[in-house]
Amino acid sequence: MDKQHTWLIVGLGLLGGRYAQILSAKGYTVTGITRSPDTLRYALDHGYIAAGKTEDFADLVQNADRVVFGLYPTVLLDWVRRYGGGFRPGTRITDVSGVKRGLVEGVQAALPAGVEFIASHPMAGRETTGITHCAEVRFTDANFIVTPTAANTPAGIAWCKALAGVLGFSRISELSPAAHDRMIGYVSQLCHAIAVSLMCASDNSDLARYTGDSFRDLTRIARINETMWAELFLWNKDNLIDEIEQFTAALDTLKGKLIANDREGLEEMFRLSTLRRAAFDKK
Amino acid sequence: MDKQHTWLIVGLGLLGGRYAQILSAKGYTVTGITRSPDTLRYALDHGYIAAGKTEDFADLVQNADRVVFGLYPTVLLDWVRRYGGGFRPGTRITDVSGVKRGLVEGVQAALPAGVEFIASHPMAGRETTGITHCAEVRFTDANFIVTPTAANTPAGIAWCKALAGVLGFSRISELSPAAHDRMIGYVSQLCHAIAVSLMCASDNSDLARYTGDSFRDLTRIARINETMWAELFLWNKDNLIDEIEQFTAALDTLKGKLIANDREGLEEMFRLSTLRRAAFDKK
Repeated sequence: MDKQHTWLIVGLGLLGGRYAQILSAKGYTVTGITRSPDTLRYALDHGYIAAGKTEDFADLVQNADRVVFGLYPTVLLDWVRRYGGGFRPGTRITDVSGVKRGLVEGVQAALPAGVEFIASHPMAGRETTGITHCAEVRFTDANFIVTPTAANTPAGIAWCKALAGVLGFSRISELSPAAHDRMIGYVSQLCHAIAVSLMCASDNSDLARYTGDSFRDLTRIARINETMWAELFLWNKDNLIDEIEQFTAALDTLKGKLIANDREGLEEMFRLSTLRRAAFDKK
Repeated sequence: MDKQHTWLIVGLGLLGGRYAQILSAKGYTVTGITRSPDTLRYALDHGYIAAGKTEDFADLVQNADRVVFGLYPTVLLDWVRRYGGGFRPGTRITDVSGVKRGLVEGVQAALPAGVEFIASHPMAGRETTGITHCAEVRFTDANFIVTPTAANTPAGIAWCKALAGVLGFSRISELSPAAHDRMIGYVSQLCHAIAVSLMCASDNSDLARYTGDSFRDLTRIARINETMWAELFLWNKDNLIDEIEQFTAALDTLKGKLIANDREGLEEMFRLSTLRRAAFDKK
């Protein structure tokens, strides 16, 4: 990536902040926009950005060559519709959003001709939020998914993957927005829905002292950033509802075998789950 | 614990083998009974037991002062009914079973007068089975639960807790068999039922390369010893069915909020799960 380019990170949260931190540390010129004066001060004080603003930021938009949106989907779409006209042709933009359908096409449609938006999703969330925690985010073993559309160019896609490499991701792949959202509904959102439901099912905190690793592992992600996850769940609700229904049907099957004292049927489910899980152990 | 006593481990599997290994290493005299000639040879070769048999073991039963049953519940109850009459008065016995109701009273009723069975559950399972894996089992951070009944003596209960201390457990507590089974239905069995159902819901192994830590953590326990878990699930089916139903109701509630686009309702569930999960982080 060209070190002459000026970067702009819009939204200096956990991921936007981490991108700014890494890019600055590697010698890129990074500017930033955030609504929060505290966040701006933190980013400047820690050298995550060379310059930044909370308002009247038309100059930062105008001067940016490479842009990352570190915003939630609804806020992102709104921001692009209000300020996206200010980007210069030739500017390349990506994002960090955890859902893609509707968003990617909407952002692309709102941008001026010659400004390319190549959507991507760094799958490296944490339970924490905000720039003060961004140094804890690890990209090394995480997946980076680029979700191109027909509006994207090979050069734009290659740039987005190069960015992922600079950020330290080793597993970089491409999916359509639809395939991405189906995948994320299963491997991430369904897991969060399950963990949350398990904690909400009953107040068993008196049992906390008896819990072993299984329970802790399964519910770790029940500590959840409520604003972001409500947003992600609702943007992808069709996929998530479908996954919940498939999962509930499997759990109902298991319950039916218990009721029927069907030992062989239970063992068959356990053998299937053991077999399938093995595929997920390979990295 | 008195080093003059002779120990007998009946069933040299993952946990029985681990008990034999630790007790022998600490200088106790340990004998063993197993149905498998291979297991017997392994236990003798590795110094886990000083002597052992696969059949005609009446002398080992007769000579035992302290006994641990490392058997599945159904096998355990059957074994005690066939051979339990051979124990001498004064003998103290415990087990490693993951379910207690029905089992504890049944074993106590089948033993001769003066032979005391103090049930316990070392909550330290793994996905592996068999004596060849027993050295991998860690007791240090695991829970050891003693489940006494009215038939037990303070001295018997104290002995069982002392055993837990020798084995290296730091968290030792007491629950009634009924409270134990309710607890285990929630913190362990429901988690396993969920993980198994998630893997059985659909064949998504093509998604394996996109999975992050959430999914791996949640489904790690879907690799399951089918014989043992079918046994444990069926022995505790009333509690487990009840937990599955409570969990399913919570997941249905979440789904209902998705369908209704109830963002505030979702955020409320996420706040509750975050709050409750925090209690489980403290050790």
